[in-house]
Amino acid sequence: MPIPTALTQRLGLAHPIIQAPMAGGGDTPALVAAVAEAGGLGVVGAAYLSPPQIAETVTAVRGKTGRPFGINLFSPLPAPVPPKDFAPAIARLAPYYAELGLPLPTAPGPAAYTFDDQLAAVLDSGAAFFSFAFALAPAAAIAAAKARGMMVAGTATTVEEAVVLERAGVDAVVVQGSEAGGHRGSFAQPFEAAMIGTMALVPQVVDAVGVPVVASGGIMDGRGIAAALALGASAVQMGTAFLTCEEAGIPEAYKQAILGAREHETRITRAFSGRPARGIVNRLMTEVADAEVPGFPLQNTLTRPLRTAAGKAGRAEFLSLWAGQGVRLARRQTAASLVHRLVAETRSAIDRLGG
Amino acid sequence: MPIPTALTQRLGLAHPIIQAPMAGGGDTPALVAAVAEAGGLGVVGAAYLSPPQIAETVTAVRGKTGRPFGINLFSPLPAPVPPKDFAPAIARLAPYYAELGLPLPTAPGPAAYTFDDQLAAVLDSGAAFFSFAFALAPAAAIAAAKARGMMVAGTATTVEEAVVLERAGVDAVVVQGSEAGGHRGSFAQPFEAAMIGTMALVPQVVDAVGVPVVASGGIMDGRGIAAALALGASAVQMGTAFLTCEEAGIPEAYKQAILGAREHETRITRAFSGRPARGIVNRLMTEVADAEVPGFPLQNTLTRPLRTAAGKAGRAEFLSLWAGQGVRLARRQTAASLVHRLVAETRSAIDRLGG
Repeated sequence: MPIPTALTQRLGLAHPIIQAPMAGGGDTPALVAAVAEAGGLGVVGAAYLSPPQIAETVTAVRGKTGRPFGINLFSPLPAPVPPKDFAPAIARLAPYYAELGLPLPTAPGPAAYTFDDQLAAVLDSGAAFFSFAFALAPAAAIAAAKARGMMVAGTATTVEEAVVLERAGVDAVVVQGSEAGGHRGSFAQPFEAAMIGTMALVPQVVDAVGVPVVASGGIMDGRGIAAALALGASAVQMGTAFLTCEEAGIPEAYKQAILGAREHETRITRAFSGRPARGIVNRLMTEVADAEVPGFPLQNTLTRPLRTAAGKAGRAEFLSLWAGQGVRLARRQTAASLVHRLVAETRSAIDRLGG
Repeated sequence: MPIPTALTQRLGLAHPIIQAPMAGGGDTPALVAAVAEAGGLGVVGAAYLSPPQIAETVTAVRGKTGRPFGINLFSPLPAPVPPKDFAPAIARLAPYYAELGLPLPTAPGPAAYTFDDQLAAVLDSGAAFFSFAFALAPAAAIAAAKARGMMVAGTATTVEEAVVLERAGVDAVVVQGSEAGGHRGSFAQPFEAAMIGTMALVPQVVDAVGVPVVASGGIMDGRGIAAALALGASAVQMGTAFLTCEEAGIPEAYKQAILGAREHETRITRAFSGRPARGIVNRLMTEVADAEVPGFPLQNTLTRPLRTAAGKAGRAEFLSLWAGQGVRLARRQTAASLVHRLVAETRSAIDRLGG
C-alpha cells in the first residue's frame, strides 16, 4: 500500500523512502536499482566519481530499472589550506600502512576533475532527483538541474541552512540530524553547534521553509518513518539501514562492524577524511587525533589506499565505518526485503497510533 | 479526547504528557498542579529541596489538585573529590560576583540532608509517580516507593542504562535523548558517548526492555508527541516547553532567553554545576571552561548565590539557562493552554498520518 506525500507524488514514488547517497562504494547500481524497483528512491553517491565513472554507474542503474533514481554530489568547497609539508601527515599514517605491507601514500595532487565536470555528467544522467551536500551548490548548478526537470535538494543541519537552501531555489531540503552516520553537511554554522537531534530539528525546519523536508538521522525502521512523517517530513533518507543490505558494496568487515555495534559506539571524527563524520569507533579513529590531520579532501586522499587495502584484508580497524546512532536496528537482508518491511512497519506504527 | 497508553492507564492520566522535573524553581506547585488538572502528569523536581521543603511543596500541590502527581530526586552519587583548596575555583568566579556586588561564596560544607532523608519525605508525599536520575537508585528506595504504590521510573541515556534500570525493578524508563535540556542522566556510559538522539534512542530502548518507555529530548509540540508514540514510547516528558509557561518559577530573563534562542545556540557545559548539562550559550558558559570547575554538586553550590542574584537582577549572562534543542518551538502561555494545545496537535498529527 503506497504512503503518498508531496514528495512521492512529485517523484512518482510509491513510498517516501530515500536511500541515502553513500559515496565510497555502498550504493552500488544493484542497491540503487533494487530500492527503485521496491518503490523507494535509490540515490547514486557520485561525489568521488569521475565524470566517466558517473556515466558508467548511471548506465548500470538504468540497465536494471526504468524507475526514477537520484544522484548526489558534494558542492564545491573552498580548497583546503594544504600543510607546508605533507610529510608529518603521511608519517602519522605510516605505521598503519606498514602493518598492511603497503607503500606510503604520496602528497595529494590537484583534483583530476571539477564539480562542473561532475555536474555535466549528472545533467546527462536522466536522474529524477539531484541532491547536494557540504555547502550551497552554485546557483547555475541548481538552475541547470531544474531546467532538466530534476527535483533538486540540498542538505541542512540547522534551520538557517534550510532557509539558505530554500532561498537558493531548491525543491526540497534534506535535514540531517545529529544521529546521522557519515559526513556532516553543516555549512552555515560550525558543525559542533549544528549537532541537532532529528526529533528537534525536523519540526523547526518544517516551520521555517515551504518546500518538502526529508528527515535523516537515526531512522532505521518503520517506527522511525512514521515518527518522521508525524514531525512533518515528506520523506525519510536512510543510510545505515541500507549498508547491511546484500547489494551494498562495502567490505564484509564493515557490515559485521555495523551488525555488532551498539548505539553509544559511534562518534564524530575527522581522522579519515579531514571533515567531521560519524562512524563506529575503531583503532584509527582512537589513535589519530583530529588536530593531526589536514583538511578535507586531503586526508581522505591520504587514507584511501589504506582503507581500500583494509577492506580487502578484512581489517575493520582501518576502515571508515560510517554509521548512525540507530545501529542496533541494522539487519542483513536484501534491499527489496528492507523496503517492503519498512512500508509494512510504517503502516503498523501508524495504525497503532490511530487505535 | 484522551490518548491512552499503558502508562496513562496505570497512572490514571488523560494524556501521555509528563512535565519534566526541573529542580531549581521551574516546577512550582502552581505548574505541577496546572499540568495535573489538564490531564498530564506534573512532577515536583525535589532534588535540591530539604525534607521540610519537599513536604511544604507537596502540601502546596495537593492544595491545588486532587489529581495524581510525581516527584523526582537525584540518586545518591559518590561524593566528588573536593579540590585541596577551593580558592582557585572561587577566584575563577570572583569577577562575576564582583559585577553583581556580591560577597564571594565560601567553600561548600557538608550536605545538610541525605538522599535517605529526602526519600522519607517522598514516601510520605502521596505522589503517584517517583522518578530518579543521575544513577541507579538504591534497591531499598525502589522497593520502598513501590510498596507505597508509586510507579517508579529511572532515567537512561543508553540502552544498557535502560536494561540496568529494568533489572533493578523500575516500572518505567525515562529515555533522555541528546536534545534534552538540563543535566545529563548518564551513569553507565561516559556522557560524551551517551549523546544519542531521541529518534535513534527510543526504539532501541523499546526493543530492549519490557517496561513502558517515556521519551524525552527535543519534544516540544504535538508533532513530537505523535512521533515519540510512533517510536514506541508510552508517554513523553517535556521540560523546555513548560519553562516558558506563566506558572514556571524561573526568572523572566531566563524565559526571554528561551523565547529568543535558536536551535544551534545550546550546548553541554559543566560550568554551572560541575555535571554536564545542556543550556543556552551565555557569558559564564563561554568564559568558564569545564576543566576549571570542581565536580557536582560542589560547583553548583559555588555558583548558586551568583545565579540567584542574577535572576533577580535580570542578568541572563550568569544564569544556568537549561534548555533543549527544540527552543524555537517555545511559547509563552499557561500550562493548561499548553497541555490542551499539545493534545489537539497530537491528534491532528496522527490524523494527518492516517489520511
